[in-house]
Amino acid sequence: MINLNALALRFVHMSKDAELWILDQTLLPLKEEWLLLRTVSEAIDAIKALKVRGAPLIGVTAALSLGQSAIKGASYAQLIDEARALHAARPTAVNLMMCMDRMMAGIASGKNPDELLGIAVHLFNEDVSLCTRIAENGAELISDGDHILTHCNTGGLATAGSGTALGVIRQASAQGKTIHVYVDETRPLLQGARLTTWELKKLGIPYTLITDNMAAHLMRLKKVQKIIVGCDRIAANGDFANKIGTYGLAVLAHHHRIPFYVAGPYTTMDWACFDGDRIPIEQRSASEVSGVEGVFGRVEWATPDSPAYNPAFDVTPAKLVSRWILDCGVFTGNDFQADRVRQLMPQQSRLQI
Amino acid sequence: MINLNALALRFVHMSKDAELWILDQTLLPLKEEWLLLRTVSEAIDAIKALKVRGAPLIGVTAALSLGQSAIKGASYAQLIDEARALHAARPTAVNLMMCMDRMMAGIASGKNPDELLGIAVHLFNEDVSLCTRIAENGAELISDGDHILTHCNTGGLATAGSGTALGVIRQASAQGKTIHVYVDETRPLLQGARLTTWELKKLGIPYTLITDNMAAHLMRLKKVQKIIVGCDRIAANGDFANKIGTYGLAVLAHHHRIPFYVAGPYTTMDWACFDGDRIPIEQRSASEVSGVEGVFGRVEWATPDSPAYNPAFDVTPAKLVSRWILDCGVFTGNDFQADRVRQLMPQQSRLQI
Repeated sequence: MINLNALALRFVHMSKDAELWILDQTLLPLKEEWLLLRTVSEAIDAIKALKVRGAPLIGVTAALSLGQSAIKGASYAQLIDEARALHAARPTAVNLMMCMDRMMAGIASGKNPDELLGIAVHLFNEDVSLCTRIAENGAELISDGDHILTHCNTGGLATAGSGTALGVIRQASAQGKTIHVYVDETRPLLQGARLTTWELKKLGIPYTLITDNMAAHLMRLKKVQKIIVGCDRIAANGDFANKIGTYGLAVLAHHHRIPFYVAGPYTTMDWACFDGDRIPIEQRSASEVSGVEGVFGRVEWATPDSPAYNPAFDVTPAKLVSRWILDCGVFTGNDFQADRVRQLMPQQSRLQI
Repeated sequence: MINLNALALRFVHMSKDAELWILDQTLLPLKEEWLLLRTVSEAIDAIKALKVRGAPLIGVTAALSLGQSAIKGASYAQLIDEARALHAARPTAVNLMMCMDRMMAGIASGKNPDELLGIAVHLFNEDVSLCTRIAENGAELISDGDHILTHCNTGGLATAGSGTALGVIRQASAQGKTIHVYVDETRPLLQGARLTTWELKKLGIPYTLITDNMAAHLMRLKKVQKIIVGCDRIAANGDFANKIGTYGLAVLAHHHRIPFYVAGPYTTMDWACFDGDRIPIEQRSASEVSGVEGVFGRVEWATPDSPAYNPAFDVTPAKLVSRWILDCGVFTGNDFQADRVRQLMPQQSRLQI
């Protein structure tokens, strides 16, 4: 049996003397190199460059960085500025904003540095247990023998805990179910090819890597029984933003009548966002599309100066979702309403919104 | 105005003393390097390695190579062996088989070497004019201002002439229509990113490069008015095989009610193949999925020893096709029947089947 938390605390780590370390995800899987984040400014750079990534993990890393700044003696004004700058580091995932809002509330209410770091550590530990609950809830939906397609990376590298979509797969596997995972590479930044294969190999869960455009062919051949993805922001009506390519998978799943699940913690819910069209979509550099960059160096394969489009996320409408797998329960289109989800959330979490 | 045949004869060329040259497509767009194919064995290697590619261009290159072998004095038995070996170089595109069948018929009927090379040159020239007719037929379907999504490379690099799907786009542009092309990169071998951008840039037709998994998002945002793709084999019922990723685009087009066109010469029709499920799909090496290879060297980004799946093609069922754009006319689902297509083909071509 796999200990679900075996990878937890591994990829972002705070030492006893409050040094904040992250595993540099841009170097994986070829190099496992830890990076020290000494300042909020370094944390922002790491977030923007995707050295630390995954909606939940970005949020808790930002909180830890701000807590560290507090205990290092930053002034009230400086902490407010830093919280704002972290808040704006990436625009789509709402977990970052939620974490910064909580830190900001602590700062505004005059908490001392230790208490501020305490809030950050609480957010970290909360994410670990949210992952565990998501995994337990989602694993119920997985059958022995399932071939599951997943997108991007939603595991221990994307959260403080065991992951969201990948956490569900880990839990089902830990329950003794035989699972095979189809990992799509997730261009342009190849989180599937680089990170999900790396985690699955470490976990000993069998997988097959494909390019993104092979998913439809696999579905037509009836080789995929379920699709599970993570999310960066869920709107109040159930629409959600996730890594570019997710929406296409949802349409393909619908066409082939394959269950399409989205997994995430309640911290990914944006109660103030009425629907998916109101979620801001981060646009990134054309150079990510015209080639790749990584530990192997920069490789450019497109015709020089090719114009390219690079939205980092897309929006999947609620009507294409079979189940929302949250920490507080599994929801269908009929019972997915922000109020109902809120009602089922742990009371403590409800109070914090 | 662009001369539609400006690029014709450019990428495969036979000199007056029957030297066969190809532009090495694996080095594009970074290097334009011509490769001399001295023997059938070298031609087979070039076809397998995709140095020359595109269903129609593979067929005529193979024919020219065999014709060259004949005039260099190959025996009857050797020519038969070489025709068989070329026939088997790649399994999915039927143009290669059709070209080899015609050469084989010439060999079997005792044609002399000059006559055999003459058949090959005829096949080459025929492809040029088939492309022109496809382009003229297809351009009628394109409106001024259209944003057109295309897949893989279907231009002068894929045919002896101006191309199939890309030829339609060129012709519409030459007619003075304002066209914008969305080029999907076409993983794993990046024919879109490397080759289609290279051709469009040379032609001065505006384009935007995207990763394959961005297509659905563009459709949802109503940024795509039409999708045109090429084909490697059309079955008698209208199902067709084309570069992996085509089927997914067809499903997405259907979901978003966007016209989905497939363009090809009658030489891509396989009258003996009842439906798409009978088209053999070439499986290629996992290493193409776990990284890239090219003029920039080998780059591997997946976790070492990751199992990967690499079908080079997929099959799109006829029911997802809005129009088949052939040299002999434009067909819809109602009038697409092998017999009807055959009836409309040029008489000379009909006789050759």
